[in-house]
Amino acid sequence: MRRLYHFALSPHCRKVRLALKEKALDFELAPIEPWAADPDFLVLNPAGEVPVLVEDDGTVLAESQAICEYLDEAYPDRPLIGFDPVHRAETRRLVAWFDLRFHADVTNYLVGEKVIKRLKGEGYPESAVIRAGQHNIRYHLDYVSFLSERRNWLAGEEFSLADIAASAQIACVDYLGAIPWDDFPLARDWYARIKSRPTFRSLLADQVRGLPPPKHYADLDF
Amino acid sequence: MRRLYHFALSPHCRKVRLALKEKALDFELAPIEPWAADPDFLVLNPAGEVPVLVEDDGTVLAESQAICEYLDEAYPDRPLIGFDPVHRAETRRLVAWFDLRFHADVTNYLVGEKVIKRLKGEGYPESAVIRAGQHNIRYHLDYVSFLSERRNWLAGEEFSLADIAASAQIACVDYLGAIPWDDFPLARDWYARIKSRPTFRSLLADQVRGLPPPKHYADLDF
Ligand SMILES: N[C@@H](CCC(=O)N[C@@H](CS)C(=O)NCC(=O)O)C(=O)O
Ligand SMILES: N[C@@H](CCC(=O)N[C@@H](CS)C(=O)NCC(=O)O)C(=O)O
Repeated sequence: MRRLYHFALSPHCRKVRLALKEKALDFELAPIEPWAADPDFLVLNPAGEVPVLVEDDGTVLAESQAICEYLDEAYPDRPLIGFDPVHRAETRRLVAWFDLRFHADVTNYLVGEKVIKRLKGEGYPESAVIRAGQHNIRYHLDYVSFLSERRNWLAGEEFSLADIAASAQIACVDYLGAIPWDDFPLARDWYARIKSRPTFRSLLADQVRGLPPPKHYADLDF
Repeated sequence: MRRLYHFALSPHCRKVRLALKEKALDFELAPIEPWAADPDFLVLNPAGEVPVLVEDDGTVLAESQAICEYLDEAYPDRPLIGFDPVHRAETRRLVAWFDLRFHADVTNYLVGEKVIKRLKGEGYPESAVIRAGQHNIRYHLDYVSFLSERRNWLAGEEFSLADIAASAQIACVDYLGAIPWDDFPLARDWYARIKSRPTFRSLLADQVRGLPPPKHYADLDF
Protein backbone atom coordinates (compact mmCIF):
# COMPACT_ATOMS: atom_id res chain seq x y z
CA MET A 1 0.00 0.00 0.00
CA ARG A 2 1.20 3.52 -0.82
CA ARG A 3 2.44 5.11 2.40
CA LEU A 4 2.74 8.74 3.46
CA TYR A 5 5.09 9.58 6.32
CA HIS A 6 3.59 12.62 7.94
CA PHE A 7 3.02 14.73 11.02
CA ALA A 8 -0.61 15.68 11.66
CA LEU A 9 -0.07 19.43 12.05
CA SER A 10 2.48 19.77 9.25
CA PRO A 11 0.95 21.92 6.53
CA HIS A 12 3.27 20.44 3.88
CA CYS A 13 2.00 16.97 4.77
CA ARG A 14 -1.59 18.12 4.66
CA LYS A 15 -0.98 19.52 1.21
CA VAL A 16 0.13 16.09 -0.04
CA ARG A 17 -2.73 14.31 1.75
CA LEU A 18 -5.24 16.61 0.09
CA ALA A 19 -3.64 16.11 -3.32
CA LEU A 20 -3.80 12.31 -2.87
CA LYS A 21 -7.45 12.54 -1.84
CA GLU A 22 -8.37 14.83 -4.73
CA LYS A 23 -6.82 12.25 -7.06
CA ALA A 24 -8.70 9.44 -5.29
CA LEU A 25 -5.44 7.56 -4.62
CA ASP A 26 -5.36 5.15 -1.68
CA PHE A 27 -2.68 5.53 0.95
CA GLU A 28 -1.90 4.73 4.55
CA LEU A 29 -0.50 7.26 6.98
CA ALA A 30 2.71 6.64 8.92
CA PRO A 31 3.03 9.26 11.67
CA ILE A 32 6.55 10.61 12.24
CA GLU A 33 7.99 13.20 14.57
CA PRO A 34 10.73 14.26 12.16
CA TRP A 35 12.78 16.13 14.77
CA ALA A 36 13.45 12.76 16.45
CA ALA A 37 15.88 12.15 13.53
CA ASP A 38 15.16 8.41 13.35
CA PRO A 39 17.98 6.91 11.21
CA ASP A 40 15.52 4.73 9.24
CA PHE A 41 13.60 7.85 8.34
CA LEU A 42 16.75 9.79 7.37
CA VAL A 43 17.48 7.08 4.80
CA LEU A 44 14.17 7.92 3.15
CA ASN A 45 14.80 11.66 3.20
CA PRO A 46 18.24 13.08 3.99
CA ALA A 47 16.54 16.41 4.69
CA GLY A 48 14.90 14.70 7.69
CA GLU A 49 11.56 16.28 6.85
CA VAL A 50 8.05 15.08 6.27
CA PRO A 51 6.21 14.55 3.95
CA VAL A 52 7.76 11.48 2.34
CA LEU A 53 5.69 9.31 0.02
CA VAL A 54 6.58 5.69 -0.68
CA GLU A 55 4.83 4.18 -3.69
CA ASP A 56 3.75 0.51 -3.87
CA ASP A 57 6.85 -0.39 -5.87
CA GLY A 58 9.13 1.17 -3.24
CA THR A 59 9.80 4.46 -5.06
CA VAL A 60 10.57 7.10 -2.45
CA LEU A 61 9.53 10.73 -2.99
CA ALA A 62 10.36 13.70 -0.77
CA GLU A 63 9.56 17.44 -0.75
CA SER A 64 5.91 18.32 -0.87
CA GLN A 65 6.02 20.19 -4.17
CA ALA A 66 8.10 17.50 -5.90
CA ILE A 67 5.54 14.96 -4.65
CA CYS A 68 2.54 16.97 -5.86
CA GLU A 69 4.07 17.58 -9.28
CA TYR A 70 4.81 13.87 -9.49
CA LEU A 71 1.23 12.97 -8.59
CA ASP A 72 -0.08 15.32 -11.24
CA GLU A 73 2.18 13.73 -13.86
CA ALA A 74 1.84 10.08 -12.84
CA TYR A 75 -1.94 10.27 -12.26
CA PRO A 76 -3.12 12.89 -14.72
CA ASP A 77 -6.84 12.44 -14.05
CA ARG A 78 -8.16 15.45 -12.20
CA PRO A 79 -5.25 17.79 -12.90
CA LEU A 80 -4.40 20.10 -10.03
CA ILE A 81 -1.97 22.62 -11.52
CA GLY A 82 -3.81 23.93 -14.57
CA PHE A 83 -3.50 23.67 -18.31
CA ASP A 84 -1.54 26.35 -20.14
CA PRO A 85 1.98 27.27 -18.97
CA VAL A 86 1.08 30.79 -17.82
CA HIS A 87 -1.81 29.63 -15.70
CA ARG A 88 0.33 26.80 -14.29
CA ALA A 89 2.95 29.40 -13.34
CA GLU A 90 0.32 31.38 -11.44
CA THR A 91 -0.78 28.25 -9.57
CA ARG A 92 2.84 27.49 -8.66
CA ARG A 93 3.55 31.07 -7.63
CA LEU A 94 0.67 30.87 -5.16
CA VAL A 95 1.65 27.42 -3.94
CA ALA A 96 5.10 28.82 -3.11
CA TRP A 97 3.50 31.86 -1.49
CA PHE A 98 1.64 29.63 0.97
CA ASP A 99 4.29 26.91 1.36
CA LEU A 100 7.08 29.37 2.05
CA ARG A 101 5.77 32.73 3.04
CA PHE A 102 2.54 31.96 4.88
CA HIS A 103 4.44 29.15 6.57
CA ALA A 104 7.35 31.38 7.64
CA ASP A 105 5.14 34.33 8.64
CA VAL A 106 2.34 32.48 10.41
CA THR A 107 2.22 28.67 10.71
CA ASN A 108 5.82 28.25 11.75
CA TYR A 109 5.34 30.83 14.52
CA LEU A 110 2.02 29.53 15.81
CA VAL A 111 2.26 25.75 15.35
CA GLY A 112 5.99 25.93 16.01
CA GLU A 113 5.58 27.72 19.34
CA LYS A 114 2.37 26.16 20.58
CA VAL A 115 2.77 22.56 19.45
CA ILE A 116 6.18 21.55 18.14
CA LYS A 117 8.16 23.26 20.88
CA ARG A 118 6.16 21.29 23.45
CA LEU A 119 6.55 17.99 21.58
CA LYS A 120 10.29 18.61 21.34
CA GLY A 121 10.41 19.30 25.06
CA GLU A 122 11.84 22.77 24.42
CA GLY A 123 9.70 24.58 26.95
CA TYR A 124 6.89 27.11 26.92
CA PRO A 125 5.66 29.21 24.01
CA GLU A 126 7.07 32.74 23.75
CA SER A 127 4.28 35.27 23.64
CA ALA A 128 6.25 37.65 21.38
CA VAL A 129 6.53 34.95 18.70
CA ILE A 130 2.85 34.13 18.95
CA ARG A 131 1.96 37.80 18.66
CA ALA A 132 4.08 38.06 15.50
CA GLY A 133 2.21 35.13 13.94
CA GLN A 134 -1.15 36.63 14.93
CA HIS A 135 -0.16 39.95 13.46
CA ASN A 136 1.07 38.48 10.17
CA ILE A 137 -2.00 36.34 9.65
CA ARG A 138 -4.15 39.39 8.96
CA TYR A 139 -2.05 40.37 5.99
CA HIS A 140 -2.32 36.84 4.62
CA LEU A 141 -6.08 36.66 5.11
CA ASP A 142 -6.32 39.98 3.28
CA TYR A 143 -4.49 38.42 0.37
CA VAL A 144 -6.78 35.38 0.35
CA SER A 145 -9.76 37.76 0.41
CA PHE A 146 -8.29 39.83 -2.42
CA LEU A 147 -7.83 36.73 -4.58
CA SER A 148 -11.17 35.17 -3.80
CA GLU A 149 -13.01 38.38 -4.60
CA ARG A 150 -11.52 38.33 -8.11
CA ARG A 151 -11.44 34.64 -8.92
CA ASN A 152 -13.61 31.61 -8.39
CA TRP A 153 -10.72 29.76 -6.73
CA LEU A 154 -7.37 31.22 -5.66
CA ALA A 155 -5.45 30.61 -8.88
CA GLY A 156 -8.38 31.04 -11.32
CA GLU A 157 -11.62 29.39 -12.38
CA GLU A 158 -10.72 25.90 -11.23
CA PHE A 159 -9.94 24.47 -7.82
CA SER A 160 -6.17 23.86 -7.81
CA LEU A 161 -3.08 23.07 -5.81
CA ALA A 162 -3.04 26.75 -4.77
CA ASP A 163 -6.28 26.18 -2.83
CA ILE A 164 -4.79 23.00 -1.39
CA ALA A 165 -1.56 24.69 -0.28
CA ALA A 166 -3.46 27.61 1.25
CA SER A 167 -6.04 25.52 3.07
CA ALA A 168 -3.33 23.14 4.35
CA GLN A 169 -1.65 26.08 6.11
CA ILE A 170 -4.89 27.63 7.29
CA ALA A 171 -6.27 24.35 8.67
CA CYS A 172 -3.19 23.95 10.89
CA VAL A 173 -3.60 27.46 12.29
CA ASP A 174 -7.36 27.06 12.63
CA TYR A 175 -6.70 23.92 14.69
CA LEU A 176 -5.21 26.28 17.25
CA GLY A 177 -8.25 28.55 17.07
CA ALA A 178 -6.01 31.37 15.83
CA ILE A 179 -7.88 32.56 12.73
CA PRO A 180 -9.91 35.76 13.21
CA TRP A 181 -12.65 34.59 10.84
CA ASP A 182 -15.13 37.32 11.78
CA ASP A 183 -12.87 39.98 10.32
CA PHE A 184 -12.39 38.20 6.99
CA PRO A 185 -15.76 37.17 5.53
CA LEU A 186 -14.42 36.65 1.99
CA ALA A 187 -11.65 34.36 3.17
CA ARG A 188 -14.20 32.56 5.33
CA ASP A 189 -16.51 31.95 2.35
CA TRP A 190 -13.61 30.49 0.38
CA TYR A 191 -12.60 28.26 3.30
CA ALA A 192 -16.21 27.13 3.83
CA ARG A 193 -16.23 25.87 0.24
CA ILE A 194 -12.98 23.99 0.90
CA LYS A 195 -14.32 22.48 4.10
CA SER A 196 -17.39 21.15 2.37
CA ARG A 197 -15.28 19.10 -0.08
CA PRO A 198 -15.39 15.40 0.84
CA THR A 199 -11.59 15.27 0.39
CA PHE A 200 -11.16 17.66 3.31
CA ARG A 201 -13.21 15.69 5.85
CA SER A 202 -10.66 13.07 6.92
CA LEU A 203 -8.10 15.76 7.51
CA LEU A 204 -10.44 17.63 9.81
CA ALA A 205 -10.99 14.45 11.84
CA ASP A 206 -7.28 14.22 12.85
CA GLN A 207 -6.46 15.09 16.43
CA VAL A 208 -3.14 15.76 18.10
CA ARG A 209 -2.81 13.91 21.41
CA GLY A 210 -3.44 16.21 24.38
CA LEU A 211 -4.49 19.09 22.16
CA PRO A 212 -8.10 18.93 20.99
CA PRO A 213 -9.11 21.47 18.32
CA PRO A 214 -11.72 24.16 19.05
CA LYS A 215 -15.38 23.32 18.41
CA HIS A 216 -15.69 25.25 15.16
CA TYR A 217 -12.65 23.55 13.61
CA ALA A 218 -14.47 20.70 11.85
CA ASP A 219 -17.82 22.47 11.55
CA LEU A 220 -19.04 23.54 8.16
CA ASP A 221 -20.66 26.48 9.86
CA PHE A 222 -17.98 28.54 11.60
CA MET B 1 12.45 42.24 -25.11
CA ARG B 2 11.99 39.65 -22.34
CA ARG B 3 13.16 41.21 -19.08
CA LEU B 4 14.43 39.65 -15.86
CA TYR B 5 14.32 41.73 -12.69
CA HIS B 6 17.21 40.49 -10.62
CA PHE B 7 19.87 41.11 -8.03
CA ALA B 8 23.38 40.00 -9.04
CA LEU B 9 24.14 37.93 -5.92
CA SER B 10 20.68 36.40 -5.58
CA PRO B 11 20.98 32.65 -6.14
CA HIS B 12 17.32 32.36 -7.14
CA CYS B 13 17.90 34.95 -9.86
CA ARG B 14 21.01 33.18 -11.05
CA LYS B 15 19.02 29.98 -11.31
CA VAL B 16 16.56 31.64 -13.70
CA ARG B 17 19.35 33.33 -15.68
CA LEU B 18 21.05 29.99 -16.17
CA ALA B 19 17.79 28.34 -17.22
CA LEU B 20 17.17 31.11 -19.78
CA LYS B 21 20.71 30.73 -21.14
CA GLU B 22 20.48 26.95 -21.33
CA LYS B 23 17.30 27.41 -23.36
CA ALA B 24 19.02 30.02 -25.55
CA LEU B 25 16.30 32.57 -24.82
CA ASP B 26 17.18 36.26 -25.15
CA PHE B 27 16.57 38.56 -22.21
CA GLU B 28 17.69 41.83 -20.71
CA LEU B 29 18.55 42.25 -17.05
CA ALA B 30 16.86 44.87 -14.87
CA PRO B 31 18.78 45.17 -11.59
CA ILE B 32 16.65 45.62 -8.47
CA GLU B 33 17.42 45.95 -4.81
CA PRO B 34 14.22 44.25 -3.67
CA TRP B 35 14.47 45.42 -0.04
CA ALA B 36 13.98 49.00 -1.29
CA ALA B 37 10.29 47.99 -1.76
CA ASP B 38 9.81 50.13 -4.86
CA PRO B 39 5.99 50.34 -5.37
CA ASP B 40 6.32 49.74 -9.14
CA PHE B 41 8.17 46.54 -8.39
CA LEU B 42 5.64 45.41 -5.77
CA VAL B 43 2.96 45.57 -8.45
CA LEU B 44 4.93 42.97 -10.40
CA ASN B 45 5.43 40.71 -7.39
CA PRO B 46 3.48 41.25 -4.17
CA ALA B 47 6.09 39.10 -2.42
CA GLY B 48 8.60 41.90 -3.14
CA GLU B 49 11.21 39.39 -4.23
CA VAL B 50 13.39 38.86 -7.23
CA PRO B 51 13.46 37.07 -9.66
CA VAL B 52 10.54 38.36 -11.72
CA LEU B 53 10.38 37.61 -15.43
CA VAL B 54 8.33 39.74 -17.82
CA GLU B 55 7.70 38.16 -21.20
CA ASP B 56 7.50 40.16 -24.46
CA ASP B 57 3.71 40.16 -24.33
CA GLY B 58 3.72 41.59 -20.80
CA THR B 59 3.06 38.31 -18.95
CA VAL B 60 4.57 38.61 -15.48
CA LEU B 61 6.04 35.57 -13.72
CA ALA B 62 7.37 35.40 -10.16
CA GLU B 63 9.00 32.74 -7.94
CA SER B 64 12.09 31.11 -9.36
CA GLN B 65 10.70 27.58 -9.50
CA ALA B 66 7.40 28.67 -11.05
CA ILE B 67 9.44 30.56 -13.66
CA CYS B 68 11.71 27.60 -14.42
CA GLU B 69 8.79 25.18 -14.72
CA TYR B 70 7.11 27.69 -17.03
CA LEU B 71 10.23 27.97 -19.20
CA ASP B 72 10.45 24.20 -19.46
CA GLU B 73 6.81 23.99 -20.55
CA ALA B 74 6.66 27.03 -22.83
CA TYR B 75 10.04 26.33 -24.50
CA PRO B 76 10.34 22.54 -24.42
CA ASP B 77 13.58 22.34 -26.44
CA ARG B 78 16.43 21.32 -24.17
CA PRO B 79 14.31 20.05 -21.29
CA LEU B 80 15.81 20.78 -17.88
CA ILE B 81 13.72 18.71 -15.47
CA GLY B 82 13.86 15.22 -16.95
CA PHE B 83 11.51 12.83 -18.66
CA ASP B 84 9.68 10.28 -16.54
CA PRO B 85 7.74 11.43 -13.46
CA VAL B 86 10.01 9.69 -10.92
CA HIS B 87 13.16 11.20 -12.34
CA ARG B 88 11.49 14.60 -12.54
CA ALA B 89 10.57 14.25 -8.86
CA GLU B 90 14.23 13.60 -8.01
CA THR B 91 15.31 16.69 -9.96
CA ARG B 92 12.71 18.77 -8.13
CA ARG B 93 13.64 17.34 -4.74
CA LEU B 94 17.21 18.45 -5.30
CA VAL B 95 16.20 21.84 -6.66
CA ALA B 96 14.26 22.41 -3.43
CA TRP B 97 17.21 21.14 -1.40
CA PHE B 98 19.45 23.84 -2.85
CA ASP B 99 16.83 26.61 -3.17
CA LEU B 100 15.61 26.21 0.39
CA ARG B 101 18.08 24.36 2.53
CA PHE B 102 21.46 25.31 1.07
CA HIS B 103 20.12 28.85 0.87
CA ALA B 104 18.96 28.91 4.50
CA ASP B 105 22.03 27.10 5.85
CA VAL B 106 24.74 28.82 3.84
CA THR B 107 24.00 31.52 1.23
CA ASN B 108 21.58 33.47 3.36
CA TYR B 109 24.13 33.61 6.18
CA LEU B 110 27.14 34.51 4.06
CA VAL B 111 25.70 36.71 1.30
CA GLY B 112 23.14 38.04 3.76
CA GLU B 113 25.72 39.12 6.33
CA LYS B 114 28.55 40.17 4.07
CA VAL B 115 26.68 41.85 1.21
CA ILE B 116 22.98 42.47 1.74
CA LYS B 117 23.33 43.82 5.27
CA ARG B 118 25.79 46.41 3.99
CA LEU B 119 23.60 47.35 1.01
CA LYS B 120 20.64 47.74 3.34
CA GLY B 121 22.72 49.95 5.61
CA GLU B 122 22.16 47.59 8.54
CA GLY B 123 25.71 47.64 9.83
CA TYR B 124 28.57 45.22 10.07
CA PRO B 125 28.56 41.45 9.55
CA GLU B 126 28.20 39.32 12.69
CA SER B 127 31.03 36.84 12.90
CA ALA B 128 28.87 34.17 14.61
CA VAL B 129 26.50 34.14 11.64
CA ILE B 130 29.36 33.90 9.19
CA ARG B 131 30.88 31.04 11.15
CA ALA B 132 27.55 29.19 11.05
CA GLY B 133 27.45 29.54 7.26
CA GLN B 134 31.04 28.37 6.94
CA HIS B 135 30.33 25.40 9.16
CA ASN B 136 27.20 24.37 7.27
CA ILE B 137 28.82 24.61 3.87
CA ARG B 138 30.95 21.54 4.55
CA TYR B 139 27.91 19.35 5.01
CA HIS B 140 26.47 20.64 1.75
CA LEU B 141 29.69 20.12 -0.19
CA ASP B 142 29.76 16.58 1.18
CA TYR B 143 26.31 16.02 -0.25
CA VAL B 144 27.34 17.42 -3.65
CA SER B 145 30.37 15.10 -3.55
CA PHE B 146 28.21 12.13 -2.60
CA LEU B 147 25.85 12.78 -5.51
CA SER B 148 28.55 13.47 -8.08
CA GLU B 149 30.40 10.31 -7.18
CA ARG B 150 27.29 8.28 -8.00
CA ARG B 151 25.83 10.15 -10.92
CA ASN B 152 27.06 11.94 -14.00
CA TRP B 153 25.16 15.09 -12.98
CA LEU B 154 23.47 15.76 -9.66
CA ALA B 155 20.02 14.38 -10.51
CA GLY B 156 21.14 11.62 -12.89
CA GLU B 157 22.73 11.10 -16.29
CA GLU B 158 21.71 14.45 -17.75
CA PHE B 159 22.56 18.01 -16.79
CA SER B 160 19.40 19.40 -15.18
CA LEU B 161 17.82 22.14 -13.14
CA ALA B 162 19.31 20.47 -10.05
CA ASP B 163 22.81 21.35 -11.32
CA ILE B 164 21.57 24.84 -12.10
CA ALA B 165 20.03 25.38 -8.65
CA ALA B 166 23.14 24.05 -6.92
CA SER B 167 25.63 26.03 -8.97
CA ALA B 168 23.55 29.19 -8.59
CA GLN B 169 23.92 28.95 -4.80
CA ILE B 170 27.56 27.91 -4.92
CA ALA B 171 28.54 30.68 -7.35
CA CYS B 172 27.17 33.32 -4.94
CA VAL B 173 29.18 31.88 -2.06
CA ASP B 174 32.28 31.41 -4.22
CA TYR B 175 32.03 35.10 -5.15
CA LEU B 176 32.84 35.75 -1.50
CA GLY B 177 35.76 33.33 -1.62
CA ALA B 178 34.04 31.18 1.01
CA ILE B 179 34.16 27.72 -0.58
CA PRO B 180 36.89 25.42 0.80
CA TRP B 181 37.50 23.81 -2.60
CA ASP B 182 40.69 22.04 -1.58
CA ASP B 183 38.80 19.84 0.84
CA PHE B 184 36.15 18.78 -1.66
CA PRO B 185 37.78 17.53 -4.88
CA LEU B 186 34.67 15.73 -6.14
CA ALA B 187 32.48 18.80 -5.71
CA ARG B 188 35.22 20.82 -7.38
CA ASP B 189 35.28 18.54 -10.42
CA TRP B 190 31.54 18.85 -10.78
CA TYR B 191 31.72 22.67 -10.47
CA ALA B 192 34.60 22.82 -12.98
CA ARG B 193 32.34 21.13 -15.52
CA ILE B 194 29.60 23.68 -14.78
CA LYS B 195 32.01 26.60 -15.12
CA SER B 196 33.16 25.44 -18.51
CA ARG B 197 29.63 25.61 -19.93
CA PRO B 198 29.24 28.66 -22.17
CA THR B 199 25.93 29.44 -20.43
CA PHE B 200 27.81 30.04 -17.17
CA ARG B 201 30.29 32.59 -18.51
CA SER B 202 28.15 35.73 -18.48
CA LEU B 203 27.12 35.05 -14.94
CA LEU B 204 30.72 34.84 -13.83
CA ALA B 205 31.42 38.22 -15.44
CA ASP B 206 28.96 40.05 -13.14
CA GLN B 207 30.43 42.22 -10.45
CA VAL B 208 28.85 43.83 -7.41
CA ARG B 209 29.91 47.47 -7.02
CA GLY B 210 32.60 47.89 -4.38
CA LEU B 211 33.03 44.15 -3.93
CA PRO B 212 35.23 42.49 -6.54
CA PRO B 213 35.25 38.66 -6.51
CA PRO B 214 38.45 36.73 -5.70
CA LYS B 215 40.79 35.87 -8.57
CA HIS B 216 39.81 32.22 -8.85
CA TYR B 217 36.10 33.05 -9.11
CA ALA B 218 35.84 33.19 -12.91
CA ASP B 219 38.82 30.94 -13.62
CA LEU B 220 38.25 27.52 -15.08
CA ASP B 221 41.23 26.37 -13.12
CA PHE B 222 40.59 26.97 -9.40
N1 LIG C 1 10.15 22.13 1.82
C1 LIG C 1 9.59 21.03 2.58
C2 LIG C 1 9.22 21.51 3.96
C3 LIG C 1 8.70 20.40 4.84
C4 LIG C 1 8.76 20.79 6.29
O1 LIG C 1 9.06 21.92 6.67
N2 LIG C 1 8.50 19.80 7.14
C5 LIG C 1 8.60 20.03 8.58
C6 LIG C 1 7.25 19.78 9.21
S1 LIG C 1 6.10 21.00 8.54
C7 LIG C 1 9.59 19.03 9.13
O2 LIG C 1 9.56 17.86 8.79
N3 LIG C 1 10.51 19.52 9.97
C8 LIG C 1 11.55 18.67 10.53
C9 LIG C 1 12.09 19.22 11.83
O3 LIG C 1 11.48 20.17 12.34
O4 LIG C 1 13.08 18.66 12.31
C10 LIG C 1 8.37 20.48 1.87
O5 LIG C 1 7.65 21.26 1.21
O6 LIG C 1 8.12 19.25 1.94
N1 LIG D 1 11.13 31.60 -3.15
C1 LIG D 1 11.70 32.72 -3.87
C2 LIG D 1 12.86 33.27 -3.10
C3 LIG D 1 13.46 34.47 -3.76
C4 LIG D 1 14.29 35.29 -2.78
O1 LIG D 1 14.57 34.87 -1.65
N2 LIG D 1 14.70 36.46 -3.23
C5 LIG D 1 15.46 37.35 -2.37
C6 LIG D 1 16.83 37.59 -2.99
S1 LIG D 1 17.72 36.02 -3.09
C7 LIG D 1 14.72 38.66 -2.27
O2 LIG D 1 14.25 39.19 -3.27
N3 LIG D 1 14.55 39.18 -1.06
C8 LIG D 1 13.82 40.40 -0.84
C9 LIG D 1 14.24 41.10 0.43
O3 LIG D 1 15.24 40.66 1.01
O4 LIG D 1 13.55 42.06 0.79
C10 LIG D 1 12.15 32.26 -5.26
O5 LIG D 1 12.56 31.09 -5.39
O6 LIG D 1 12.07 33.06 -6.21
